Amino acid sequence: MPLDFNAIFAEILRSIEPDRGCGKVADYIPALAAIDRMKFGMCVSLENGDTHCVGDAEERFSIQSISKVFTLSMVLRKVGDDLWKRVGREPSGSPFNSIVQLEMERGIPRNPLINAGAIVVTDHLVSDFGPAAMIDELLNRLRMLAGDPSIAVDEDVASSEASVGARNRALANFMQSFGNLHNPVEETLAAYFSHCAISMNCRQLARAALFLAFNGRDPISGKQMVTGEACRRINAVMMSCGHYDNSGDFTYRIGLPGKSGVGGGILVVSPGHGSIAVWSPGLNKAGTSHVGSLALETLVRLTGWSVFV
Amino acid sequence: MPLDFNAIFAEILRSIEPDRGCGKVADYIPALAAIDRMKFGMCVSLENGDTHCVGDAEERFSIQSISKVFTLSMVLRKVGDDLWKRVGREPSGSPFNSIVQLEMERGIPRNPLINAGAIVVTDHLVSDFGPAAMIDELLNRLRMLAGDPSIAVDEDVASSEASVGARNRALANFMQSFGNLHNPVEETLAAYFSHCAISMNCRQLARAALFLAFNGRDPISGKQMVTGEACRRINAVMMSCGHYDNSGDFTYRIGLPGKSGVGGGILVVSPGHGSIAVWSPGLNKAGTSHVGSLALETLVRLTGWSVFV
Amino acid sequence: MPLDFNAIFAEILRSIEPDRGCGKVADYIPALAAIDRMKFGMCVSLENGDTHCVGDAEERFSIQSISKVFTLSMVLRKVGDDLWKRVGREPSGSPFNSIVQLEMERGIPRNPLINAGAIVVTDHLVSDFGPAAMIDELLNRLRMLAGDPSIAVDEDVASSEASVGARNRALANFMQSFGNLHNPVEETLAAYFSHCAISMNCRQLARAALFLAFNGRDPISGKQMVTGEACRRINAVMMSCGHYDNSGDFTYRIGLPGKSGVGGGILVVSPGHGSIAVWSPGLNKAGTSHVGSLALETLVRLTGWSVFV
Amino acid sequence: MPLDFNAIFAEILRSIEPDRGCGKVADYIPALAAIDRMKFGMCVSLENGDTHCVGDAEERFSIQSISKVFTLSMVLRKVGDDLWKRVGREPSGSPFNSIVQLEMERGIPRNPLINAGAIVVTDHLVSDFGPAAMIDELLNRLRMLAGDPSIAVDEDVASSEASVGARNRALANFMQSFGNLHNPVEETLAAYFSHCAISMNCRQLARAALFLAFNGRDPISGKQMVTGEACRRINAVMMSCGHYDNSGDFTYRIGLPGKSGVGGGILVVSPGHGSIAVWSPGLNKAGTSHVGSLALETLVRLTGWSVFV
Repeated sequence: MPLDFNAIFAEILRSIEPDRGCGKVADYIPALAAIDRMKFGMCVSLENGDTHCVGDAEERFSIQSISKVFTLSMVLRKVGDDLWKRVGREPSGSPFNSIVQLEMERGIPRNPLINAGAIVVTDHLVSDFGPAAMIDELLNRLRMLAGDPSIAVDEDVASSEASVGARNRALANFMQSFGNLHNPVEETLAAYFSHCAISMNCRQLARAALFLAFNGRDPISGKQMVTGEACRRINAVMMSCGHYDNSGDFTYRIGLPGKSGVGGGILVVSPGHGSIAVWSPGLNKAGTSHVGSLALETLVRLTGWSVFV
Repeated sequence: MPLDFNAIFAEILRSIEPDRGCGKVADYIPALAAIDRMKFGMCVSLENGDTHCVGDAEERFSIQSISKVFTLSMVLRKVGDDLWKRVGREPSGSPFNSIVQLEMERGIPRNPLINAGAIVVTDHLVSDFGPAAMIDELLNRLRMLAGDPSIAVDEDVASSEASVGARNRALANFMQSFGNLHNPVEETLAAYFSHCAISMNCRQLARAALFLAFNGRDPISGKQMVTGEACRRINAVMMSCGHYDNSGDFTYRIGLPGKSGVGGGILVVSPGHGSIAVWSPGLNKAGTSHVGSLALETLVRLTGWSVFV
Repeated sequence: MPLDFNAIFAEILRSIEPDRGCGKVADYIPALAAIDRMKFGMCVSLENGDTHCVGDAEERFSIQSISKVFTLSMVLRKVGDDLWKRVGREPSGSPFNSIVQLEMERGIPRNPLINAGAIVVTDHLVSDFGPAAMIDELLNRLRMLAGDPSIAVDEDVASSEASVGARNRALANFMQSFGNLHNPVEETLAAYFSHCAISMNCRQLARAALFLAFNGRDPISGKQMVTGEACRRINAVMMSCGHYDNSGDFTYRIGLPGKSGVGGGILVVSPGHGSIAVWSPGLNKAGTSHVGSLALETLVRLTGWSVFV
Repeated sequence: MPLDFNAIFAEILRSIEPDRGCGKVADYIPALAAIDRMKFGMCVSLENGDTHCVGDAEERFSIQSISKVFTLSMVLRKVGDDLWKRVGREPSGSPFNSIVQLEMERGIPRNPLINAGAIVVTDHLVSDFGPAAMIDELLNRLRMLAGDPSIAVDEDVASSEASVGARNRALANFMQSFGNLHNPVEETLAAYFSHCAISMNCRQLARAALFLAFNGRDPISGKQMVTGEACRRINAVMMSCGHYDNSGDFTYRIGLPGKSGVGGGILVVSPGHGSIAVWSPGLNKAGTSHVGSLALETLVRLTGWSVFV
């Protein structure tokens, strides 16, 4: 019997009601700080092409770190296991973020989903495609998958990120001092800030990630985006490391591979079932959408989609 | 079509052949150091009661840290979410093991599967059952599930552990200094050393953990060992934190919740499919069985049992 | 022209008046928590045998970590530079205290004046003298130097320390796990808790340390307590490491080698001039007497005794 | 009786002979890597204007971090104790250098003599003087004190430093992310690289620092360079923090406030006696001149100039 998403969404809306608007909106750049914290959207994308949406699912937001899942897909397709010479795949496990471990582990970031690791992934892609072509390639893949040629970088957000990016600049320079950045720091960072500043809505995001739920093959277009093995591994890295220092808690509560961004979005994959994007701007202490996590917890309870059942 | 485990085991034996005997056998106590590094056993336990075994699957070994999965089951059944006031559920993510984080996080261990966290779990059980009754209760559960009343603590191993247990004694005293140990240090440690010194073989271990693959209910006896929710969460914690500082790598390569022990055993759960125990004494740098991991990688490839597919 | 200590003490009393009673009295054992925080005593001991005292300089208090200067003197006399194979001589420089570095530096404490390092020194002396004879030897030296055969361990304090000593027990076990403790943990700790529980007053303490101001030779008895070279080095270690994580600040403000204890005492040496003991129980955040430090700052300003002039 | 420096230098040359040429020459920029490791020069500057030199004491070398003593003098004169709001005065005490502590202590460097702290000092001076005028002011002071108008920045070294300065760029960006850098990163870094690239010889260096041995007043020109209090404090900070992670060892062996640079120079102050500069390019593991330290150890033994006697 197919799931009744109308009923599921109704229950989800009830479950998040008391917390709606809670959490802290990212305020380090004006474009993010201005977002209404009451926003909430969610979309489930299925193998047969159906999408089920609720709330502000058509409103675009800054995908931020969720972009790291797509750059990781690109780099694994391109360089394969050589990636792991320059970045690890262990959770960072540290409340103070990653520069401490970067120093102890001599410039090798813990995993490709924390900032330092994602900068290395971007650096790889800049070497392979060139800085501009890399962003074009990424956008083309997202546009093709989501079926919307208007998906683009929000240049205001990108330049705001660049202007306040001292911490990421520190990480990049630090890795360069260990020889783990191969392009000029500012070139790699510009590409990194660009892909984090892509705007998409929940429907597009869920749709674009559907291949991760089906062994690397997009079930709608039939295109094999990454190998089955790479797909399993991307999901594994999302499970271990997708939510900074609350990755363990996310795994515990939701039990699905996912990635959160400080724009309030969370992308989640349920292998064999579908992909889910949720958006709500209020963040918990670790930078994951508070209401988004709650909504996912309810969805998993109602669908039985946890990988641990 | 049912899986052909004869063929699967044949392929596994081929795949591990070049590495057979590799890795470092734990040598901190004589009883472990004496084990033949060529040993290899594996057993798969299924919902219908079938078990498929290969190699030294009937030979008992010291289950060591694998016991932490069973004590975690007991404590979650008993105290529920109150456990998380005294222990976290995030990966430790640190190559130097846990006392560093114990200090920074004021005596709260990162998760219940590292030594410090497992000592807190034991301390909980000592408070609830008493030190001797706690071990009896644990043994009774294991004996019932595995259908073998002879399962027992290896007292030689337990007393060897106690005599060289300075590091665990440091952890326990350290937590006590923060008020996170409620019983006398030596009492809790004695119980901890005892449950780590339980001897079981692969067949028994796989059988005893079968309930974790079926939503907390042992499909053979029909007994609900833990709630479905607790079961999902135990699996989640094993996925995030089951293999010390190579938990991410294990998730990446094998993609199943599991727990390794320095005796060379690994216990793995495939939700909806079954449970697997493997044993081979040579350890990798992070303390997980080297050949055991390889065997599981092949098994997952042949069965398609990864949770990420 | 000799210094006018009456005038100097009058000025010191004025300078500390506004802060009298400030700071937090150590409260981890009842015997320390009960001390009146308004207490203040000071004594200067000079080469010619003169002592100049003010306030509660005749009242005994628990010398605590100040005892580490005397055990360091004993061990350097006995084993010389071999000590530095088991303990470093660098400041620990860390606000979270030493177990973090013990782990990173594999059981070698940073210096002999932090707890872990002082436990190694005690362990050395226990090996050389035996646990009881070591305390006798230490007391005999203090009694001889201070001219008071009644100096003794406060057994109430020692047993209280032992009963709440989980943190030190963690440190000792941790070092033992790295092979850097040669006697049974409890034996070495008992000796350590004993020497920290010695009671002395300011007059006795200043007098007992006078040899450190005169190249290792006690100018009153004429006895060479340690070699000139050892004396310079003890002073150097006190300067670098005498006050936990505010050693740099103490050097900056007072500019003399010294050692503080959580009983509120501070012992300070002015090479070529004399030795000073001050006592006031209220501690600053780093565990150094707040009013005692202020008094020393004034004394150094009035006498010009800083080593940096 | 005045010291016989001819005899002292002869003994020093004998004492260093077996180690001459040992240690590792800094090789991160060509200008430093090219220096002959057999070089050795030393100069002692006295209150009466006498200077005693031996070896390559007239050959200029890159003073590198020794410049931090002079920028610290300038900033204390200018801003006084307000400096300590932006930088600490505790030893860093860590073998992995400072970015770890920068993160834990939220962008406040441990002390003004490690790179991060010296960059904050430079940033202060850039705010006060402007970037170019700051270097002019520093050079004018050094030229006046050393009596040589040709003292200058080696522009080759400065631009080499800038081109390989990823680590310092990481530190500066990291502090900026915490709001502890007030000028554009590249502007402050350019000034920092410039002052580290000043070339001086031992005679000039000893002469320029003579005021630190005489309470802040240069005894030759009669000029009060810093207050007596600031002078004591600069010496205290050099004693606690002058030699990275072997500051404690330097204090233990030599017992004088000093500062080393990776160019192989060491500047040392003996309050009331004089100032000493030594140069020999081979460095120990912590970045301090190996032969230079040996020479100072002998000098202190022969002169009795340790502050701990």
